[in-house]
Amino acid sequence: MKRVGVLVSGSGSNLQAILDAQKAESLGAEVRLVISNIAGVRALDRARDAGVSAEVISHRDFSSREEFDARLIARLKEHGIELVVLAGFMRLLTPKFIESFQIINIHPALLPSFPGVHAAKQALDHGAKITGCTVHFVDSGCDTGPIIAQRAVPILDGDDEETLGARIQAEEHRLLPAVISAIAHGRVRLVSGSRRVEGSV
Amino acid sequence: MKRVGVLVSGSGSNLQAILDAQKAESLGAEVRLVISNIAGVRALDRARDAGVSAEVISHRDFSSREEFDARLIARLKEHGIELVVLAGFMRLLTPKFIESFQIINIHPALLPSFPGVHAAKQALDHGAKITGCTVHFVDSGCDTGPIIAQRAVPILDGDDEETLGARIQAEEHRLLPAVISAIAHGRVRLVSGSRRVEGSV
Repeated sequence: MKRVGVLVSGSGSNLQAILDAQKAESLGAEVRLVISNIAGVRALDRARDAGVSAEVISHRDFSSREEFDARLIARLKEHGIELVVLAGFMRLLTPKFIESFQIINIHPALLPSFPGVHAAKQALDHGAKITGCTVHFVDSGCDTGPIIAQRAVPILDGDDEETLGARIQAEEHRLLPAVISAIAHGRVRLVSGSRRVEGSV
Repeated sequence: MKRVGVLVSGSGSNLQAILDAQKAESLGAEVRLVISNIAGVRALDRARDAGVSAEVISHRDFSSREEFDARLIARLKEHGIELVVLAGFMRLLTPKFIESFQIINIHPALLPSFPGVHAAKQALDHGAKITGCTVHFVDSGCDTGPIIAQRAVPILDGDDEETLGARIQAEEHRLLPAVISAIAHGRVRLVSGSRRVEGSV
């Protein structure tokens, strides 16, 4: 079973979707460690309720990003983590971290549209009619890595950031565990010499 | 019936979709004039076969874009055109033209992703998993105007520019006549003070 570490910063609803899939034995991978850079967030309770090790490593306890990441790397390696999932983790990672693991991120838009923060609001302000979510491998850019899977979500008249955000999240909760399962079973692969990922999710 | 002018530069498959909708009486608008900036293209035959006036106004016969556009404006006004549809028209329009009519364009991607030329190839090279098509009001930018409607199209393993382009086009042929009908029936409106278009297509 592929060993998965999940990095979080907040409520952890995507983490919950992963833990639910693990409980239902549809994940094909095992979440061995959850790390939050913020103390007291609900994600930590969700992990512990599922019997998964959970700890806080606060970026504020380190004088540089490199030192913070070195601690993250050390803890993840100690747990034998092979795949790192960013599930609402609100810190940028150093190149050293990115080279150390296979890492995936979920973003609440159809990249390359609406990268960065407040993606649902960006989509609304732009007047888009379709947005969605994207799971991608993490590279050194912000939301720029090779795309593994995307799902479309309609934008409806009268939507605000909250209603649209909830509709996107519901799709995220289906997509992220499915991508982890596809990676764990070797069903997706990066096409060499390109940024295209082939295989079914 | 709202009088529609269609500008084309090539084969005119989107024009054909509009003419088919007109024939089936589902367009709610009347195509009165088709103008191509290129002589001998199939779009001109399609227009004439449907009994619609079709003419060539070559940009090469004018020494400036302003003069070319002035001729286009004059011919469209003479036919009482209220709505101009860009259906594969490969020339940029001057501000004067843009102020003279309500204008819509169809673009083979989910804007703001992949604006400009070769949108299907851009989506493939980026490794996107979902692309689509967008109908938008035309402003002075390139593919930047307020979005009226979008449809998602999946990108499949093994797709090349031709297979993906054909899948997008099939969706375009459904969407463009539907948007013209929605505009003709007053079912879509720009929300004032924003770039959001509300209403159903």
